[in-house]
Amino acid sequence: MSLEAFTAQMLPAVEKELQRLVARLNAPRTALFHEMLTYHLGWTGEGAGPAATGKRLRPLLLLLTCAAVSEAGNQKEEQGEEAWHAALPAAAAVELIHNFSLVHDDIQDNSALRRGRPTVWKKWGVPQAINAGDALFILAQLALLELENRLPPAIVLRASRILQEACLALCNGQFLDLDYQEHADLTLEDYWPMVAGKTAALFSACAHLGALLGGADEALQEAYRNFGHYLGLAFQVQDDYLGIWGEEALLGKSTASDLMEGKKSFPVLCGLEKNGAFARRWKEGPLRAEEVALLADLLAQESVKLRTLETVDAMTDLALKMLLQADPSGAAGEALFELVNLLLRRQA
Amino acid sequence: MSLEAFTAQMLPAVEKELQRLVARLNAPRTALFHEMLTYHLGWTGEGAGPAATGKRLRPLLLLLTCAAVSEAGNQKEEQGEEAWHAALPAAAAVELIHNFSLVHDDIQDNSALRRGRPTVWKKWGVPQAINAGDALFILAQLALLELENRLPPAIVLRASRILQEACLALCNGQFLDLDYQEHADLTLEDYWPMVAGKTAALFSACAHLGALLGGADEALQEAYRNFGHYLGLAFQVQDDYLGIWGEEALLGKSTASDLMEGKKSFPVLCGLEKNGAFARRWKEGPLRAEEVALLADLLAQESVKLRTLETVDAMTDLALKMLLQADPSGAAGEALFELVNLLLRRQA
Repeated sequence: MSLEAFTAQMLPAVEKELQRLVARLNAPRTALFHEMLTYHLGWTGEGAGPAATGKRLRPLLLLLTCAAVSEAGNQKEEQGEEAWHAALPAAAAVELIHNFSLVHDDIQDNSALRRGRPTVWKKWGVPQAINAGDALFILAQLALLELENRLPPAIVLRASRILQEACLALCNGQFLDLDYQEHADLTLEDYWPMVAGKTAALFSACAHLGALLGGADEALQEAYRNFGHYLGLAFQVQDDYLGIWGEEALLGKSTASDLMEGKKSFPVLCGLEKNGAFARRWKEGPLRAEEVALLADLLAQESVKLRTLETVDAMTDLALKMLLQADPSGAAGEALFELVNLLLRRQA
Repeated sequence: MSLEAFTAQMLPAVEKELQRLVARLNAPRTALFHEMLTYHLGWTGEGAGPAATGKRLRPLLLLLTCAAVSEAGNQKEEQGEEAWHAALPAAAAVELIHNFSLVHDDIQDNSALRRGRPTVWKKWGVPQAINAGDALFILAQLALLELENRLPPAIVLRASRILQEACLALCNGQFLDLDYQEHADLTLEDYWPMVAGKTAALFSACAHLGALLGGADEALQEAYRNFGHYLGLAFQVQDDYLGIWGEEALLGKSTASDLMEGKKSFPVLCGLEKNGAFARRWKEGPLRAEEVALLADLLAQESVKLRTLETVDAMTDLALKMLLQADPSGAAGEALFELVNLLLRRQA
């Protein structure tokens, strides 16, 4: 079974799980509250549909890992399938955590659009958007507890701890991201703790949870945890690359470029470290739209583009090394390798 | 042992637990993040001290219930003490949940002051305050998981579910509170679902958790859960009373009055239902400071003051009925009755 075939089985099951959880808010007085969440998750309102839901990468990573571990342990594909079905509440939980952070992030970054649609705060105001984010977070907690229907309490508690620790790291990363906006004297050394929290912690938790729920022992869980960590780092640096040199950033509206937003991304911090023409212009203050292409060129001339791609490759290599160490077997294992390639060769 | 003696033992232990949990954020790059939380919890910064920490009512309710149940089951005071020590992580968790909701609430209500000190968003901006609230919520989750050190996994999961359900109710109540700001056609029927979520859910969870962790059976847990629910309702209506006719609201700055803030409190909804002189003026739009005393008088003339006090009494009676049904024994039991009286006879 290919990654595509797994995706076709797993993601509709995740979506069903999410819908069931979110439906808890659908009571007479709170129909609008429910609507905020179904809108954000891409199911309702203007532009609803696959383009609005996001890729559901995190649940996919969790479920594939779970299936790969369980198949390896039992040498049977059916066992893998049974295992990932039992892990669905955890898959829903990580997606809800991701979306909680997006809803709050959009307020914090003053972003009016997400996936081409007005953000929750833009539609319903900041107070309700804060509360909607909180609700997604709480629903994630409730989702995770549903693991108890099919797994022993001690495992569920272990899963809960993994998820909470990832959330705390996420929150730490978010603090740094916001705090860095007040500082100009940053280097690449400041980059890694931020993205380890903001992106890698949840990826890492997904692979870790998948391994735990698939029945992996401590050593194997550790290998998957590390795999998720480096996958998350590679994913974020790749994202930062696309934010400057991706098709949309270069050819779309210049506001699509991270450079316009003043984001402290990998290329920017790398460029600041070089302390050349890019750094001089950057430190003078906000860019005008017509400067974006020029600044992207400056960065490329200062070898930052190359170094960014090399860093994606280096992190990808580390992720693959960890995945080889975990030695996933069966079709789900192959699909995991496919997922890594798909993620890190993407252009959008 | 009196309520005072229990408080003197329990609250320093809660404070120590809270400090240990919050210290997780105290890392080199995140010292400011840590400071936001220690400031909000009343330990550091301008005006730090007992007046800034709040009353820690919720952990006290949880621990007293736990001690009362455990003493009754074991007929020994030492058992009660052992039980409430084991429940400390849950006591810290409910206090962190309460404070998470306060930090977000202050942003949502645009409140510049809390307990006489600048709010977190006022000091560090909305983006960081949203994140600080999120961190308090996550620390609550991590706190609860620490119950596992002394209690069986199945009990810890049950405790976690009780807490999450309370959080979801809290979030629902917050939605209604915000949503009601857009509506003028509200009655007392709309009041109860809002405060059941905003206030009673967490009080109810405290008593429920205390009973569970003290070893109560299902029926006894249910009695304590109901006790907490009515205690929370009584507490909120009392709070609403003080918000209009309390010393600070009447004699302090008129901005201390709920009437100035346009809050949909019990007396206001009651006054709107009467549809008299108060309702006519209220519907005309925001009050001027000099009108506050007059409007409070109008409400009193329309019997709303009396009805509010009667409602506090009615809810208190229900709470006491449930507490009698739970039949707490020993010194901790007596202290619980003392707590009810203290809370509902308060003037501030």
